[in-house]
Amino acid sequence: MLSANDIKTIRSLREKKYRDSFGLFVVEGEKMVAEALASGLDVERVIRREEVGEKTMERLSGLSTPPPVLAVVRQPSDMAPERPSGLCLALDSIRDPGNLGTILRIADWFGVDTVYASPDTVEVYNPKVIQASMGTVFRKRPVYCDLPSLCESFASAGLGVFGTFLKGDPIYSCDLPSEGLIVMGNESEGVSDAVAAKITRRITIPCFAKGAHAESLNVAVATAVTVSEFRRK
Amino acid sequence: MLSANDIKTIRSLREKKYRDSFGLFVVEGEKMVAEALASGLDVERVIRREEVGEKTMERLSGLSTPPPVLAVVRQPSDMAPERPSGLCLALDSIRDPGNLGTILRIADWFGVDTVYASPDTVEVYNPKVIQASMGTVFRKRPVYCDLPSLCESFASAGLGVFGTFLKGDPIYSCDLPSEGLIVMGNESEGVSDAVAAKITRRITIPCFAKGAHAESLNVAVATAVTVSEFRRK
Repeated sequence: MLSANDIKTIRSLREKKYRDSFGLFVVEGEKMVAEALASGLDVERVIRREEVGEKTMERLSGLSTPPPVLAVVRQPSDMAPERPSGLCLALDSIRDPGNLGTILRIADWFGVDTVYASPDTVEVYNPKVIQASMGTVFRKRPVYCDLPSLCESFASAGLGVFGTFLKGDPIYSCDLPSEGLIVMGNESEGVSDAVAAKITRRITIPCFAKGAHAESLNVAVATAVTVSEFRRK
Repeated sequence: MLSANDIKTIRSLREKKYRDSFGLFVVEGEKMVAEALASGLDVERVIRREEVGEKTMERLSGLSTPPPVLAVVRQPSDMAPERPSGLCLALDSIRDPGNLGTILRIADWFGVDTVYASPDTVEVYNPKVIQASMGTVFRKRPVYCDLPSLCESFASAGLGVFGTFLKGDPIYSCDLPSEGLIVMGNESEGVSDAVAAKITRRITIPCFAKGAHAESLNVAVATAVTVSEFRRK
């Protein structure tokens, strides 16, 4: 049975401050709950509509259409890799939850070793991130850290620190290594000055638009094209 | 001045059937209205909060936060190209408005000549498509048509008809021409059987995921990686 207090706690997990203080998050829907259970994460509670009733499910769910099942999952204590290695992404202040979720999916597909994120990047346990990631968050989560220091540690290890800019070397003709750090910038501001100062190679995705009107690419789309190029080479 | 009837008409444009019957659509926000005005499209009316008041703007707007300005724009009568040429995209039953808007942005960036779409693809004047396209809809709109016939006309013109599938030739090592048709399938079902039968070359974006767990890529992301590969070559 769910007590009134349980319901209150689960509802509170819609807000980051309660997710932080309880160390928990919620996943909704059959497919996502099944993935959470299969992932090895610590699933504290699975709540089914047939057990608690429609009304309670409506109160618990953050979705406009309450799902048949949701789960409360403990946030794992992720460890940062001890030293820079592999092909890694660094997200500099990505604010849109849909973009973070999509980028995690891309990172998973292209076998990115570690995804790092600045502390002001959207929180991975935000329900919209979980939804957009299609369950990827159960196996790939960002390591939140100070990006300028991270860039320095990659450079010290002899690895390239790549940043995507509107003006940089065309990515198709660059020599791209199999290991290194790729920095993706904020949706509207791009890479921050403090991080830009640490980048050793500026790259760009060439624009083929006719006329002078082309918008920039969405950051998740730019991430996919960039990581695909690194992997191709 | 706006009459009660004007307000009713503008509000009705949130629904496809009224957009179709009036031949109009709405764009909201300073940036989008400025782009609509600069685009050469027929802007029938520009409505500003300072003229109509907050309350009326709330009634007119489809957004949770009403913008300072919105415009009513006439749907242009787009003409399909007379014969197959250039690098083109065909969208087979893309249902998510955010995906269509993002794909139009990608098509614009990579200079795709024509975007075609099956009749059951989401309508381009859906407000969420317009928003996600970041104004690209003012210069690049899909031509809705029967895709199996379209594929045949490309093939008859001696151009390749490429389809993205989970099992196909790895895109990085394919010979990709500068002209041809690239078919992208529905978000969950992929390319439909009727269209798949007309495809002359099946291609795939290789997966580098560790373990057997990788999700598929989002269709807009897959479009970007695919079109980027065609343009690179």
